[in-house]
Amino acid sequence: MAENSALPLVILSEQFAKLPGIGMKTAQRLAYAVMSMSDSDAKQFSEAIMAVKTDVGYCKICQNLTEFEVCPVCNDDNRSKSLICVVETPKDVSAFERTNEYGGTYHVLHGLISPINGVGPDDIKIRELLDRVSAGNVDEIIMATNPTVEGEATAMYIARLLKPLGVKVTRLAFGIPVGGHLEYADEVTLFKALENRSEM
Amino acid sequence: MAENSALPLVILSEQFAKLPGIGMKTAQRLAYAVMSMSDSDAKQFSEAIMAVKTDVGYCKICQNLTEFEVCPVCNDDNRSKSLICVVETPKDVSAFERTNEYGGTYHVLHGLISPINGVGPDDIKIRELLDRVSAGNVDEIIMATNPTVEGEATAMYIARLLKPLGVKVTRLAFGIPVGGHLEYADEVTLFKALENRSEM
Repeated sequence: MAENSALPLVILSEQFAKLPGIGMKTAQRLAYAVMSMSDSDAKQFSEAIMAVKTDVGYCKICQNLTEFEVCPVCNDDNRSKSLICVVETPKDVSAFERTNEYGGTYHVLHGLISPINGVGPDDIKIRELLDRVSAGNVDEIIMATNPTVEGEATAMYIARLLKPLGVKVTRLAFGIPVGGHLEYADEVTLFKALENRSEM
Repeated sequence: MAENSALPLVILSEQFAKLPGIGMKTAQRLAYAVMSMSDSDAKQFSEAIMAVKTDVGYCKICQNLTEFEVCPVCNDDNRSKSLICVVETPKDVSAFERTNEYGGTYHVLHGLISPINGVGPDDIKIRELLDRVSAGNVDEIIMATNPTVEGEATAMYIARLLKPLGVKVTRLAFGIPVGGHLEYADEVTLFKALENRSEM
């Protein structure tokens, strides 16, 4: 923002620019938009930011973000507690919930093992998963990390720790996305689709 | 955001989604980003939002946004007070300031006359401009509203009010942008460029 702008606007622009995917131009535009909000809207916005920091924590069972001690999914008697879907982020939980097809519970790792970024097994919520499984009553763990190098490595690592506990460990299926075109599928996806073909 | 997300995150997403150009997906991403900020960073962000509402007001001379009673431009003895550049928004002031070539002062209208949107002459800062000119010591007014229907109409309207006050009223030049290609110029721009051609 040009030096002649009001300082509070410059400061707010810089705050917006810290957010991922927000450049300086967009940040300025957003700061001006806040400026033209009503006082009560701006207050709500400001308070909403503080609220996520003060009111949201981890579910003590699945580690998903929640404002309760135990999240609504873990607290739901209709959800199968013997089936756990292991995901990287809370956003992945939202993605599964949108299918309206999954009746088990989740476990959110909050990251993936990535030696290159200095993230080791103790930096993500693996310990908590092992504790849940050790406590018993778990039949199957679905490894639902992304099909990236880190996602695969983390899934393999966790699977190896879980096997001795006598639990079934499965991996999401990878293949051609529904509605996709073979022509545009990359080689690895096509290979996975071929490898995991099923009888019709 | 899926219904299973923590409520404070949903609320913050909705707040972000109110901002111009921010859709629901981006809003969610930003809410998660705030969630992973440090407590002090989130506090600074929250306070910066309130600060623009409480600390920023209009310069009593040029109506630009400022945290002072009189903005730094109007307060600068090196800027010519007899030359006033009339713009639509504070962002336009920033644009002119970036050129480092303009030595006069500004007048920010905070809008354009637009009967279709219910904005009349009394809804923008025209009265304040007339008062400045009536107070004397103004030689020239540069109408620097955008070359849109509303921008042109507002410029014409203000020019007609100013002429009787014996002040010179000018309009920004329109033509081919520097570095632009004739091939891509629209007909109106090309016509303006032809009409306002200068001798070499």
